[in-house]
Amino acid sequence: MYKVNAKRLQDNLELLGKIGRTADGGICRFTYSKEYFESVEFLKRIMQDAGLEVFVDSIGNVIGTAKGKTDRIILMGSHIDSVPNAGIFDGCLGVLSAIEAMHALHENGVQLDHTVKVAAWAEEEGNTVVGLLGSGAFVGKMNDLTEVALKKMSSLGLGVENVEAAKSKDLAKIDAYLELHIEQGGILDADGVNIGVVNGIVGIRRFEFSVFGTKNHAGTTPMHLRDDALIKAANLILELDKLAREVEPDMVCTIGWIRVEPGVANVIPGKAVISIEIRAMREDSMDRVQEYILQRFKKDEFSFKTLFRQVPVLMAQSCKQAIGRAADELGLSRMNINSGAGHDTMIIAEEVGNCGMVFVPSVGGVSHCPEELTHWSDVSNGANVLLNSLLNLDQEK
Amino acid sequence: MYKVNAKRLQDNLELLGKIGRTADGGICRFTYSKEYFESVEFLKRIMQDAGLEVFVDSIGNVIGTAKGKTDRIILMGSHIDSVPNAGIFDGCLGVLSAIEAMHALHENGVQLDHTVKVAAWAEEEGNTVVGLLGSGAFVGKMNDLTEVALKKMSSLGLGVENVEAAKSKDLAKIDAYLELHIEQGGILDADGVNIGVVNGIVGIRRFEFSVFGTKNHAGTTPMHLRDDALIKAANLILELDKLAREVEPDMVCTIGWIRVEPGVANVIPGKAVISIEIRAMREDSMDRVQEYILQRFKKDEFSFKTLFRQVPVLMAQSCKQAIGRAADELGLSRMNINSGAGHDTMIIAEEVGNCGMVFVPSVGGVSHCPEELTHWSDVSNGANVLLNSLLNLDQEK
Repeated sequence: MYKVNAKRLQDNLELLGKIGRTADGGICRFTYSKEYFESVEFLKRIMQDAGLEVFVDSIGNVIGTAKGKTDRIILMGSHIDSVPNAGIFDGCLGVLSAIEAMHALHENGVQLDHTVKVAAWAEEEGNTVVGLLGSGAFVGKMNDLTEVALKKMSSLGLGVENVEAAKSKDLAKIDAYLELHIEQGGILDADGVNIGVVNGIVGIRRFEFSVFGTKNHAGTTPMHLRDDALIKAANLILELDKLAREVEPDMVCTIGWIRVEPGVANVIPGKAVISIEIRAMREDSMDRVQEYILQRFKKDEFSFKTLFRQVPVLMAQSCKQAIGRAADELGLSRMNINSGAGHDTMIIAEEVGNCGMVFVPSVGGVSHCPEELTHWSDVSNGANVLLNSLLNLDQEK
Repeated sequence: MYKVNAKRLQDNLELLGKIGRTADGGICRFTYSKEYFESVEFLKRIMQDAGLEVFVDSIGNVIGTAKGKTDRIILMGSHIDSVPNAGIFDGCLGVLSAIEAMHALHENGVQLDHTVKVAAWAEEEGNTVVGLLGSGAFVGKMNDLTEVALKKMSSLGLGVENVEAAKSKDLAKIDAYLELHIEQGGILDADGVNIGVVNGIVGIRRFEFSVFGTKNHAGTTPMHLRDDALIKAANLILELDKLAREVEPDMVCTIGWIRVEPGVANVIPGKAVISIEIRAMREDSMDRVQEYILQRFKKDEFSFKTLFRQVPVLMAQSCKQAIGRAADELGLSRMNINSGAGHDTMIIAEEVGNCGMVFVPSVGGVSHCPEELTHWSDVSNGANVLLNSLLNLDQEK
């Protein structure tokens, strides 16, 4: 049984975690920034040390390759771009653990049957152009970019041709994809479990919902004559909160923003606009909530618009088994878990059938801030599970 | 029994309603604007025609005086400034009816025992400096202007000295104050009643209320682990709506604006901030709602700040009787009614004990917009009630 060099992995995470560090103590490393390209140089160096041949594609994905005995491919990856004022684990853990796994094999003179590719996907967080750009381009799933996204790319000297050229010629050769990531819901941490074997990544539907009332004088309009748009919205908000708990244990529903019009203290709101985001593993659960929203008010009393839609994605049985077996062989506790957050795996799984994700605990489920913390023992556990999952998958015909 | 010239009153309302007319079909006549001073010139002319001696004071109040047999005073007034895109009745009706009442007496060679003063109070609506500035200055109640208000005044070449110089030297001589206004709640219109004898003007308390939750990832945080500030706010909003209906029939409670932080679709709100406005005729009713708000959440879970406070004001028995008698003598139906809106009378009543207000129907209770409409028959009814209330009050003791 092979194991990673935990010390080297920690050193690399800490070194990468210095690039883009701000006065607030967090990391700011947006794709295509100076700090991003500095990180790319760092990755190139440690990939080469790990025996990988490095290539940066036309959209900024950094891909290291270790030739195997065949040209069938196992892909591993995550991202190194960050949200504003981020921690050092989200994304970087997956990239650096994959590199470390390959370094461990390289040191031991192991050549796998599969050619292994390790990718740092560009722009997962989407703070520069649009989220999941790099992995999406790699699998040819970024052909409907918005005008806003294209404009942002254009200002960086990038165009549709960059997206198209990043599409992999080898998609058909990929037998599996693995991603290691911190678990951002705090479930592993709360339950004291070492490893999460991801069962699936939830689907997301995001709507803008407006409900209409009658704007009126807040002093002269008696309560019983009011048609207050905010009261209608408040009722819907509480109903959705209750409904989400009833429909499915994994479902979440969030009203993240609200605005009322005209929005002054002495006028009864004539219109309330809210965001509604639902996430669930089952399309029919999301259908049920969407139906509820659409029949809640009379036709001329509301308007409704879909802002974003992502289907739920199930991880492959073969990957889940490879991960579970690796955890067991390493003597680590594990549980099946769904991911409420989106990841590059979600978009890759649309083209590569055999995908799996490994989760490790993040203390308190905290992420996207400087306080984000995964204990070093969990870091090496995760990397060892990734390495041995790779070995397990490599042996599958 | 004297009556106004209904045709002349209508003509004057229509003429004044042309000054400041916008492309939207409404009126925009902010105090101290070009349109405001144009209106002042119009008022001066018709006041002189009505036999009044005109004086524009240091804060922009236009005051016309008809000498009586004694130097005891009866004051009548309202305002000619407007909100943006207003109708032609709010405020103007009271000023022009008072002038018309004096014109009718002048034509008939009637000199009252009381000296009568007719005032067009500056800046009732408060779109230029601060609401009720003119009437407040007249009664010496504008000594705590905010820095913002003083800055706005300064840019107009006005200062504290203008406010102070506007204070009337004759306050002790004022035996009564009357104001005619449209009824903005739609109650007279709905009930088909000609005249509202105002019983009182509601008190107002306006708060900014924040409730805290825990900002968190909208995808990875299960429903049962959430501490959503917007859910807390939505509950409070619905509870206050219910409570206001229970406490007192005249009470209203309005949440006119809301904002959540950070205010993005995929983050659970960590903070919700709302305005809460309560209006009622009874201080103890408002106390009860305020107490409810203050005990609803744990001490460290909310913050609370008073933005505005106005005590309820009762109209005087003598004025209510004079108005009621006038309506009866004119054969008009009447009802006692509270005003949910603030008026100049509210601030004048703090210094002049004997105040009364006459309401006439506004169709649908609509006001502050071009659709604001009072039928011409209701306009002349109101002016006749004002005239005869004046005569009734003049004959008291």
